[in-house]
Amino acid sequence: MTNWTELDQNVRSWIKEAGERIRHSFQTELNIKTKSNRNDLVTDMDEATEHYFTENIRQTYPDHQILGEEGYGDELNELSGITWIIDPIDGTMNFVHQQRNFAISIGIYDGSVGQLGYIYDVVHDELYFASKGKGAYMNDTKLPTLKSVSIADAVIALNALWVTENNRIDHTILAPLVRDVRGTRSYGSAAMEMAYVAAGRLDSYLTMRLAPWDFAAGKILIEEVGGVVSDLKGETLNPLNKSSVFVGKPGLHETILTKYLKVKK
Amino acid sequence: MTNWTELDQNVRSWIKEAGERIRHSFQTELNIKTKSNRNDLVTDMDEATEHYFTENIRQTYPDHQILGEEGYGDELNELSGITWIIDPIDGTMNFVHQQRNFAISIGIYDGSVGQLGYIYDVVHDELYFASKGKGAYMNDTKLPTLKSVSIADAVIALNALWVTENNRIDHTILAPLVRDVRGTRSYGSAAMEMAYVAAGRLDSYLTMRLAPWDFAAGKILIEEVGGVVSDLKGETLNPLNKSSVFVGKPGLHETILTKYLKVKK
Repeated sequence: MTNWTELDQNVRSWIKEAGERIRHSFQTELNIKTKSNRNDLVTDMDEATEHYFTENIRQTYPDHQILGEEGYGDELNELSGITWIIDPIDGTMNFVHQQRNFAISIGIYDGSVGQLGYIYDVVHDELYFASKGKGAYMNDTKLPTLKSVSIADAVIALNALWVTENNRIDHTILAPLVRDVRGTRSYGSAAMEMAYVAAGRLDSYLTMRLAPWDFAAGKILIEEVGGVVSDLKGETLNPLNKSSVFVGKPGLHETILTKYLKVKK
Repeated sequence: MTNWTELDQNVRSWIKEAGERIRHSFQTELNIKTKSNRNDLVTDMDEATEHYFTENIRQTYPDHQILGEEGYGDELNELSGITWIIDPIDGTMNFVHQQRNFAISIGIYDGSVGQLGYIYDVVHDELYFASKGKGAYMNDTKLPTLKSVSIADAVIALNALWVTENNRIDHTILAPLVRDVRGTRSYGSAAMEMAYVAAGRLDSYLTMRLAPWDFAAGKILIEEVGGVVSDLKGETLNPLNKSSVFVGKPGLHETILTKYLKVKK
């Protein structure tokens, strides 16, 4: 039997230590690589941080599975037993350009069920946390259950790229939504944007393509406060697959889905 | 003769006190009004904060002019003598929805020359400050002079609204820029976005219509670190007039202006 209380204490202590190392790294020069394309950056700190987590997990929980962005984890075909899904630095472009607005994201799944979700805003020392069925928190503050909001009163996160011609979505689909809502924002870190939705600071967030480590923790957080998590078609996310992601307050999620996303062009 | 050192000390002490009052207000319910349209929110705190500044300024500097968003200042036709240009809460929508990502913005002009600029991120207790000819700072950290960057390596701030059909700009003008840059962001506070440009976290920021109190402080900050501040046509901003605003690193500003903004449609 997994001792979830002890596991939670371990994650927190590792996250705090990793955050300390990242903050310390700001005093030294970054070594930036480019991954699959020029905008997919990776730094020494991404790799060192994931390595730090995987070493600790393998030593303490040798029978757990690990799925990580930088490849120190396992090749997984299914979610069985306990799986850690880790993004050591979500928002690496912000990390490089801003040295803020990035997060450590860790989702811990038991089979296919998300049990613990952690999104740590390293610079502001804010830990967003949820335990399935036991509530969600920012540091020690409990996050209230999300209530619905109208389109006209909604502030949503959406990158400008998705309303210009791009190769992921017809850019005319989301334009009416951008015009109808109260405002749009874009922060450049899916984990932070999902933490913002969980905290009620954003009413919805839509993006075209995320990897499991980008949304694994955010899904647990948002569902724990009554928000809705799906892909752009309204289908359930599979924590092993890349996918579009669409999250939002209850009611608002349904309205955006039926009035904007499911409209035939 | 104005004692600028003493004036600077006064501004800082008033900003800190106003920030304290705003943070304290988070514990009570906001009373939100709508100004000219449904998205132009104003709260008790906007008004109370501007009133607090204007009372202090009038008592200490009775011969100074004040231009403020909420109307406690003067009706001004020209910049003569010393003028305070104040936005008590820049990013009121963020203030209401997020209780973060808003700022107090104060620019102090001597004639038409910006002398002191202050942008205070209330929640994170970060004061961005510039004194003409004497450098710019975030709290005690000096901000380095901005260096140029290529379009492909640039992260710019731009609201998604400006690349969807809107009544301020042909939405196809900025779409190629969104595709060509490394990334776009949108934070919903012009003062914060200008502070980010001054701090080198964003390489450029473009928006269609700001009031003087939105850009008065940011202009001083950005120019002090070698950035370029203009409207979308590349013309100088007049701190008494509403205008589009386009700021950026040297070189990059020129490139965006000539390759994207001045292209005939």
